[in-house]
Amino acid sequence: MSLFEQTLKKIQPIDTSFYDKAQAKLDMLTKPQGSLGRLEEFARRYSAIKEDLTPKVGKKAVFTFAGDHGVADEGVSAFPKEVTPQMVLNFIRGGAGINVIARHVGADVIVVDVGVDYEFTEELHGSNEFIKKKVKLGTNNMAKGPAMTRNEAVKALEVGIGVANEYAAKGYDIFGTGDMGIANTTPSSAIVAAITGKEVESVTGRGTGIDDKSFDKKVAVIKKALDINKPNSKDALDVLARVGGLEIAGIAGLIIGGAANRIPVVVDGFISTAGALIATELEPKIKDFIFMAHRSVEVGHQVMLDWIGQKPFVDLNLRLGEGTGAAIGISLIECGVKIMTEMATFADAGVSESNI
Amino acid sequence: MSLFEQTLKKIQPIDTSFYDKAQAKLDMLTKPQGSLGRLEEFARRYSAIKEDLTPKVGKKAVFTFAGDHGVADEGVSAFPKEVTPQMVLNFIRGGAGINVIARHVGADVIVVDVGVDYEFTEELHGSNEFIKKKVKLGTNNMAKGPAMTRNEAVKALEVGIGVANEYAAKGYDIFGTGDMGIANTTPSSAIVAAITGKEVESVTGRGTGIDDKSFDKKVAVIKKALDINKPNSKDALDVLARVGGLEIAGIAGLIIGGAANRIPVVVDGFISTAGALIATELEPKIKDFIFMAHRSVEVGHQVMLDWIGQKPFVDLNLRLGEGTGAAIGISLIECGVKIMTEMATFADAGVSESNI
Repeated sequence: MSLFEQTLKKIQPIDTSFYDKAQAKLDMLTKPQGSLGRLEEFARRYSAIKEDLTPKVGKKAVFTFAGDHGVADEGVSAFPKEVTPQMVLNFIRGGAGINVIARHVGADVIVVDVGVDYEFTEELHGSNEFIKKKVKLGTNNMAKGPAMTRNEAVKALEVGIGVANEYAAKGYDIFGTGDMGIANTTPSSAIVAAITGKEVESVTGRGTGIDDKSFDKKVAVIKKALDINKPNSKDALDVLARVGGLEIAGIAGLIIGGAANRIPVVVDGFISTAGALIATELEPKIKDFIFMAHRSVEVGHQVMLDWIGQKPFVDLNLRLGEGTGAAIGISLIECGVKIMTEMATFADAGVSESNI
Repeated sequence: MSLFEQTLKKIQPIDTSFYDKAQAKLDMLTKPQGSLGRLEEFARRYSAIKEDLTPKVGKKAVFTFAGDHGVADEGVSAFPKEVTPQMVLNFIRGGAGINVIARHVGADVIVVDVGVDYEFTEELHGSNEFIKKKVKLGTNNMAKGPAMTRNEAVKALEVGIGVANEYAAKGYDIFGTGDMGIANTTPSSAIVAAITGKEVESVTGRGTGIDDKSFDKKVAVIKKALDINKPNSKDALDVLARVGGLEIAGIAGLIIGGAANRIPVVVDGFISTAGALIATELEPKIKDFIFMAHRSVEVGHQVMLDWIGQKPFVDLNLRLGEGTGAAIGISLIECGVKIMTEMATFADAGVSESNI
């Protein structure tokens, strides 16, 4: 049995009795019951995943998976393809959006090359970890044939699983997902359309900022890719291989590996949620281990959130990716967990309880 | 001229040319233009308030104003009145929700007694600052007459202004507002109804968690208070005095003092926004200095947000008050400011720009 199959089998349902136990604990604290709303919800679920009523959010990491896309050749992005490796170097050096936000919330950034179309041979200077696990030099152009073979998709998933296992062993408490890959909203929209059956137009957005003409082309390219490849909507691995991406596979693998290790995974925006969609289609139990951090500007994001059945934490009009929304989500979960573990009880503080 | 009048006169419009200057700076950073959405908006406005393109969010404070309400005698709250001083002690000792969240975001908590119906004579042990500026031992019961005299309302406003001046002088960069006062959703709803002219039923909620019967009573009490006191909707000071609260006045004063000192003020939920409503009615220029942190569960909150014309940062179903939402808002503003000041530019990082 492959690492991929083994890991999927390892995922167990969460013990939902911890929801009630955690809420009972929250209700003893000096505040009206339920008055911290979703912060309490985050604490309950974190507690249930960890099976711990005094959990900690200690070591935190955002994993930014990078990969290139053959479909970029079709002119679907506002940015040239060389930006993917340039941004990888920026991540390593600490100058990107995800670096700033991760520092703000106390999370490490780990950059994972699953499939950048560039060999990083120069000396890499920077304080952020870089994991070289390239499966191939970018996907093939899905407008002309499958983006990857099924075997390559499994390898890329296993990169994510391997990273999850490694950082679980290192004692990390929570993971965030992130992505970098010029043109990657195109395969993400294709994944949404393939799995949910929605019209391509209704799940396709402007990515990094394309004009009307490029948008029409993008829609046409996605339709063509779906038409040529005919991904099987009931087989998420087939969808991933035919119209997905290497970094999307890495993200799906991280989520699968997180769930197998009972580590909460905070999912970033549109591209990361495409990874989460693949992961939860492969194993629906994974839904209990993931937290959707924010609602992206990308129109297809809401379709996936509804399909997975979760409400995002915040809506800040973000559309950068990299894990920026996930980092904000991690901080909000930590806030909720601290509420549960650091607040005084009514008894301790000598505060009178409700009359009702 | 009173401190109150002087401070209102001191407030100057913000230099909106800084919006464009700040956006120009944000657009040089290694991300698609505008892709960090509202984080960029926060950075722009913070920059404009400070008239600084490399601003910092250094020292941060949440001010939790405490006061009691004569109208609590009408049975409008789920909690007994003694909870106000009990919670003040909890704030000082660091066991309340606001203490946990403020620690999480690196903000100090400063507790201000503007009108608690209790003399704090015991030794106060705790690491959080306590400012004793009691104007009176709680408001009068507004269901029977004015909550305060106009002079008492001005004194309570000046407590907030004095605190703002003091912490501006101490070098604080950003303020958050918070409240504690059993029954204080009742005067807050009365303020919304008095100023906006909306029906009492449409601006009244469940506060800390009352049942249907108590809710009907609460609505009737607010209607009676408005009927007896006939606050003048065009005179915010009259509204504050007749149907307001001492801690609400303190919050309004902090906001006025913040604006006069060019310090951004992050406004918490329902009660704090009632304070912001008073402040912005007294001086509309104040709108540019305040940030609405979150959308409260309290139904009347949205009415005030629309009236003031701002969109809250997050909606996490919070209804605790104390400044808990404001603390989260401060962290998001700091995040946006760090984006503007810490990210690499395209030129520095050697990243190619958009083709479009």
